[in-house]
Amino acid sequence: MTEATIGAGAFDRDTAVTAREEGVYGAELSDQWTIGNAVNGGYLLALLGRALGDVLPHPDPFTITAHYLTASRPGPATVRAATVRVGRTLSTGTASLAQADEEGREVERIRVLATYGDLAALPDDVRTSAKPPQIPPYEQCLGAKDGMDPANVPPITHQVDLRLDPATVGWAVGEPSGRGEVRGWFGLADGRDHDPLSLLLAVDALPPTAFDLGLSGWVPTVELTVHVRHRPAPGPVRVAITTRNLAGGFLEEDAEVWDSQDRLVAQSRQLARALLD
Amino acid sequence: MTEATIGAGAFDRDTAVTAREEGVYGAELSDQWTIGNAVNGGYLLALLGRALGDVLPHPDPFTITAHYLTASRPGPATVRAATVRVGRTLSTGTASLAQADEEGREVERIRVLATYGDLAALPDDVRTSAKPPQIPPYEQCLGAKDGMDPANVPPITHQVDLRLDPATVGWAVGEPSGRGEVRGWFGLADGRDHDPLSLLLAVDALPPTAFDLGLSGWVPTVELTVHVRHRPAPGPVRVAITTRNLAGGFLEEDAEVWDSQDRLVAQSRQLARALLD
Repeated sequence: MTEATIGAGAFDRDTAVTAREEGVYGAELSDQWTIGNAVNGGYLLALLGRALGDVLPHPDPFTITAHYLTASRPGPATVRAATVRVGRTLSTGTASLAQADEEGREVERIRVLATYGDLAALPDDVRTSAKPPQIPPYEQCLGAKDGMDPANVPPITHQVDLRLDPATVGWAVGEPSGRGEVRGWFGLADGRDHDPLSLLLAVDALPPTAFDLGLSGWVPTVELTVHVRHRPAPGPVRVAITTRNLAGGFLEEDAEVWDSQDRLVAQSRQLARALLD
Repeated sequence: MTEATIGAGAFDRDTAVTAREEGVYGAELSDQWTIGNAVNGGYLLALLGRALGDVLPHPDPFTITAHYLTASRPGPATVRAATVRVGRTLSTGTASLAQADEEGREVERIRVLATYGDLAALPDDVRTSAKPPQIPPYEQCLGAKDGMDPANVPPITHQVDLRLDPATVGWAVGEPSGRGEVRGWFGLADGRDHDPLSLLLAVDALPPTAFDLGLSGWVPTVELTVHVRHRPAPGPVRVAITTRNLAGGFLEEDAEVWDSQDRLVAQSRQLARALLD
């Protein structure tokens, strides 16, 4: 298979938005980025991020927050994006994704607030104390499909190249570590390299840390905020997700994304519901 | 001094909003929560959070995000708050704070997106691995005014009861640790206990971690997201703020707030600009 390039991959195709009028876009939520009947929240955020990048004068999401209101479904959707403020180096905008319900009434699925900038224009200074996560080499990590019944592999698993750190997959064989950690290598199955938009997918594409805490129920995202800090270098990224505070039926999921040049390219935090079963 | 009660403290008075019409509120930004000519971002977030709590059916900010667009100034302001979606256990809304500029034109200062719920309705389960920060007893910490020229104490310093961990104030005497950590006890000067709204202040009321990294310039907040996870018990809270990634002229500030019952009551992250001087 020849490798897809940025702009020409399945991710680009499935997150495309078509301008209908000023600030209004048509989109088709793909059924290829789903688990069960849930459309991946990172995939949806990337689609909204693409629309915002079209209305704002700056190209890259520096900080983007999504509140997931109702469950998105594969199929047609309408995205509305509007400018809040335009500055010299940063601009802020809001976006919304809506779908028609069974009766044809429009229902809002997601509301987004974000500030964009130009990653390429940032100075090169790095004074970070953050260290890349300790993850075994790609070859020694476990493919997401490994051990799955091929008939039950979720569609999104075919779209991504996810290799999990064996130390964080005990839950798959009934032995969660209880630490609330999931780590792995993350790329796109068609070989498309990462860009700021695909990082919005990367932070939400690993199995829930709740599984490593011994929970098996669904963990719907209430809110997800992503900071994109640097343009990712070519090659798969390393993603480390941790949960420290599961309490009152909610938990946070903190994600770090590191590129092949050992740059911390994205940080995210989400508030999710732990549906105990 | 008799202790102020929740609802009757200086913080409540200065974050009050007055309904003018459906979803529109008048407010007076106090000059008592400032440093230099900057109005504290946590104070402003609490004021916006109060307006949102008035329009939404749920009382407590579970996750609230503010994007700081232009510099707020002490004086009159208009807050507009609107409902995005109302659910059974969660409701989402957006709010905006605006002020008139020199020519009387309205300028938006802050845009907020938040989801509210009822902290009192959450189950009591706690399965957290988070541990409270190691901070010396209140009496052994340093008052924010200690060593300051009384004539130059910023107004906000008189409103809060902030006691900093001596291990994290080396920057004040020209010896930053370089770790990017600031910790301390945080209460309100009039003895008012904390509530979910004052936690929005607590996460942004300590000196910038950038000082502990050896920077001395101003660190304006671009975006601040706070998760309130539990209703705080009476007494001062412990706040620990850390920065791991200072790069490209931006940094994140992660805050944890722990109450007197050793509950992790709030988590926050902000993206800030490091204005190198």
